This record gives sequence, structure tokens and C-alpha cells, in this order.
Amino acid sequence: MSELRKDPVTGRWVIISTERRKRPTDFLLESVQPAPDPNCPFDEGHEHMTPREILALGRNGSGPDSPGWSLRVIPNQFPVLRVEGTLDRQGEGLFDKMNGIGAHEVIIESPRHEDTLATLDERAVEQVLWAFRERVQDLKRDQRFRYIIIFKNHGAAAGASLAHSCSQIIALPIVPREVRDEVDGAHTHYRTKERCVFCDILKQESEDGRRLIAENADVAAVAPYAPRFPFETWLLPKRHQSLFEDAPRHEYASLARLLGDILRRMNKALRMPPYNLLIHSAPVVEPAGEYYHWHVEIIPKLTKVAGFEWATGFYLNPTSPEEAAQVLRDARV
Amino acid sequence: MSELRKDPVTGRWVIISTERRKRPTDFLLESVQPAPDPNCPFDEGHEHMTPREILALGRNGSGPDSPGWSLRVIPNQFPVLRVEGTLDRQGEGLFDKMNGIGAHEVIIESPRHEDTLATLDERAVEQVLWAFRERVQDLKRDQRFRYIIIFKNHGAAAGASLAHSCSQIIALPIVPREVRDEVDGAHTHYRTKERCVFCDILKQESEDGRRLIAENADVAAVAPYAPRFPFETWLLPKRHQSLFEDAPRHEYASLARLLGDILRRMNKALRMPPYNLLIHSAPVVEPAGEYYHWHVEIIPKLTKVAGFEWATGFYLNPTSPEEAAQVLRDARV
Repeated sequence: MSELRKDPVTGRWVIISTERRKRPTDFLLESVQPAPDPNCPFDEGHEHMTPREILALGRNGSGPDSPGWSLRVIPNQFPVLRVEGTLDRQGEGLFDKMNGIGAHEVIIESPRHEDTLATLDERAVEQVLWAFRERVQDLKRDQRFRYIIIFKNHGAAAGASLAHSCSQIIALPIVPREVRDEVDGAHTHYRTKERCVFCDILKQESEDGRRLIAENADVAAVAPYAPRFPFETWLLPKRHQSLFEDAPRHEYASLARLLGDILRRMNKALRMPPYNLLIHSAPVVEPAGEYYHWHVEIIPKLTKVAGFEWATGFYLNPTSPEEAAQVLRDARV
Repeated sequence: MSELRKDPVTGRWVIISTERRKRPTDFLLESVQPAPDPNCPFDEGHEHMTPREILALGRNGSGPDSPGWSLRVIPNQFPVLRVEGTLDRQGEGLFDKMNGIGAHEVIIESPRHEDTLATLDERAVEQVLWAFRERVQDLKRDQRFRYIIIFKNHGAAAGASLAHSCSQIIALPIVPREVRDEVDGAHTHYRTKERCVFCDILKQESEDGRRLIAENADVAAVAPYAPRFPFETWLLPKRHQSLFEDAPRHEYASLARLLGDILRRMNKALRMPPYNLLIHSAPVVEPAGEYYHWHVEIIPKLTKVAGFEWATGFYLNPTSPEEAAQVLRDARV
């Protein structure tokens, strides 16, 4: 019989469907491999094809927008939101709107077109996390921004428009709804229990073991109890901390090591799947230190979202997290 | 400059992106045409290939599960939830779960493989709506069910697994999160204004006209002010009513006429797009009569949802509803 499960943070229910049970071989997998592209604007040597860089790491000597870098951050050429202007909040009868003020940047994770987060070495992945931190610290100074989201679309099925490995940062003038629900849910748990709900999850998953995929001294990878999607994986720092950008350097190193490990396991078990990677951190303007706990979510794109999910926000997952965790534990590379 | 807009019911913000503006010809369109399939279990004459029918319309004389019908309702062969059993709500440490109790039915909308809701005549579409009503009225008698969702996945990109035109009904033991947000938002508006928010929307859109696509005596089709997706369209009954299944017969006729019209306009303007159709109605157990207003939402599947949307619930829409409404007004068939 199928099971309805409730996420302890957001209160969102999901259906773990045994009737429609799917194992890795049952998915219509689209293997992601960066197709060669002589005109890729993100390749080393093509710096003139992008907007001027905001940050570069690893370059010695030569000036900005020249080769020699190991990581570059640039403004998005087609930004969703712009830094220039004023919010100009206004009503339109019943409706409310404001100008699209924000920031939209792209982190080019490697100078080489064929690299992915799964093939980059640990130091290079750590550098990516460090660049995220640097950019968030800088963007936070703009008092108009209430939330800064870091995410990655890997593969066309996950929404990537370019094959070259990159992530995006968007600074928003509002706290979006999913974030609001998660932060409020964590706050509710804290008010009742005086404990962080993510710390509670870590403790229970560590003792239980069925949904634990891998871990190191600082970070644990778990299949969440009520996942929306097959093989959804959370990477949780073991030490309580609400903001990603305030983590100590050694936690980025530990996260980089575990992240590369998990992505290689997914590549092996799910044949190089498209995925979204999301960094969940507290809103920049809120004192969520006691009750929110930053973490990383990886969502392999293995199924299509259909009418039922759009209508209800209620997800149908054909793979239990216990089975997904077992598959990924066994897929050690 | 892009614009942030807030949905007046749920409070959900969306970004209407002018930088990434897309017109109908800019989308990667996947035209949906039912591929011939000699083994389609939903074709007339193949009744033995499906579970036993729950309801059939249009058949004269011959017995159940035989040819001659114009519409059939059957249990889903791979149900997400099952009627048999008990909910057995229980905790698992921090977590909560219950058994997958519910109902999952399929409405086969035509005996002919090549039909779609856009090609069926008005009477046949009205019959589909009438079958929805009959099934909801019946399922409501089971006191375990708190919400009944009716939806349609048209085309593989919208999640359809079979090409033959059909809809689905799922009865759920919980009120799902998206529905909760919409009902609560409507309630909040009512408490402040003592008016239905959807009635207010209808009035403003009717006076404004920019987002009005088409209408008849009983139903109006509008592009919502803050749409998540390009060409998202709402069909709102003009008379206030919280429950779809309580509408008078002539409203189903008017809805059938406008629905066919809108789907043909979409087929013309967007080259037969995949879409999801969702019926939004009040939860069966709640006295939402004063403040909730049932309606139909059509979401053409023209863009891919990426990491930003998954992380934030904040949608990026490259087509303004004013432009979408203009395109659909001009696409009269």
C-alpha cells in the first residue's frame, strides 16, 4: 500500500507510491554530458564573449577578463532582475506589483568546457562554495535584498541553457514563498520544542540509518523522509548554523568532498542524470539563527511533474527514500 | 524592466521578465497529436483491456464494459491511492505518516482515439464535465476524503502516459498545501472585505479588459494578473459558487463552450501545446461557500521549471498576461 508522509519542516505531504514503484532502471534517463561547443562563452579564452567579470579566482598576474582563471563570476547576460532603479511598490486596483530590482549573477565553475561538479577535484568544488560565500557577503550589503538564492541547473532537462558547468545567484527584494514556509515551519518547531528541527532530523536519521547515504566529520547526506522527487538528497552540516555564508572554511571543504562523492554516486546509479542543486539558507534580514539550519538539496530530474502536482503541491514519488538511500550507499565510486 | 507581481489570492509573487520576453514563436513547442495505437486500452472495442467501469454514458442497451459508450469512467490500473483499508495515522519519531487511502479514477473522454477536448463537440465536452460532477458527488459520500482533485494531463510533456484523451480524479485524505493556501487566502480577503476575492478579480478584469480573453453569459476566460506560466488561463464562472459539483447544468454547458473555444485558440496560437487542466474547488469538508469560488485553470507546458522555481516557489514568466491575452484574443478560430 502507498504511504502518505509529512515533511516535518514545511508540513508538506507526499505520496510514496508502491504501485508505481520505480527503480533506477525504470526511469527515462537523459544522460548529461557537456556537448562540445567551439563558441561557448564560458570557456577559457572566450572572456570577451561575456559581460565584465565581478570576481575571478586563480588568476595570477594578468588583468580582468583575460585567461588564467580557475573560476569566474559574471552578471547574467539576460538578467531576471536588475540592480539599477527603485522598487516603486504600487497597487493596481486589487493587485500589487513592484519593479524587478535584484541581482542575477553566474558562477562559471571551471575554465574547461567538459568539467562538471562530479569530475572537478575537491579543491575546485570548495572554490565554488567559497565564491558563493564571497558573492553573498557582498550582495547582502544592499539593504533592498531580503533573500539570496544560489542554485544550479545541470542538464537541459533541469533547465540549463548552456552546457558549461555553472551556478547562479539571484538576490530578491522579497522572501519567496517556499523559503517562507520552510523558515516558518522551523520556527514553529523551535517554539514548541526549543530545538532546531534540522538538528532533530540529523539525530534521528543518524540513529536510524535507513535514509543515511554517506557522511564525514562535518556533513551528512540523507534521503529526506518525505521527498518530493525520487533520489532527492539533502546535505546537512552537522553543526547548527542558519546562514550558509557564515560557515567556517573547513565546513566548505567537508561539504565539497561529500558533494562530489554524492554526485559521482548519482552518476553511477542514475547514469549521469540532470539535476537541480539548491542552497537553502536563512533570509538575510531575519534573526533565524536559533531555529533555521542551512543545507544543500540535490534534486535529480527523473520524472515529469504533471497536473496533480501543479494543482495540489502534493507530490507523487515512485521511489521510497529508504530504497534511494540504499541504491546510493551501494553506488560508491 | 521586469516586474514583480503578487497573486491576490495566494500572495505568491512571480517575475514577469521583459529581458527574457517570449512570444509564441519563441517557445520550443511540442505539438501534441494522439499517435495511433492499435493496442490503446481506452479505444472503443478494447473495454476488456481496462479494469471494470464505474460509470458509462451514452450506451443504449448493451451491458457494462461493452462498446457503444460515449464516455467511460474506470479505476486507474496503477492507482496512486486505494479505497480499501484504514488510514492508520501514526508517528515515526519526528515524522508523521498514514496509509495511502483514497480513490483514483480515469475519465475516458471519447471512444475515439484521435479526439481531444479541442475537437470534441460542445455536447461531448459538457458530458465530460457532467461525469466529473457525478463522480465527485459519489466520492464525497466517503467521509475519509477531504479533497477531490480533477485534472488532465494533455501530451507527454504535461505528464500524460497514454495518448487517448482522458482526465483523472483523485480523492485525498488531506487538504493539499496549494489548495490550503488558496482557500486560506480567499478567506483572509473575505474577512477583511466581506467579498469573494475571485468575484473582485472578475469585476476588475471585466472593467479593465487587458487580460480578458473571451467570455459568454456564465463564464469568463482571463489571463491572471500574476501567472506562474506563459499563457496560463483561468475560466471563472460569473456566479459565485464554491463547489464545482454544485453548479447548475447550464453553467457546465457555458463552460464547455468556452473551454473548447480557449483550447482551439491555444492550438492555433501555440501550435497544439501540451497542457495541464485543473479544476479548483473548495475542500469537501469545509464551509467555504461565502469566500471560495470554483474555477478552471489551464497551464500550457511551454517552459521548463528549473532550480530557481524549485528552490523558491517563485516563478519566472517570460510572457506578460496582457500579451498572452492579446495573442489568444486574436487567435479566434
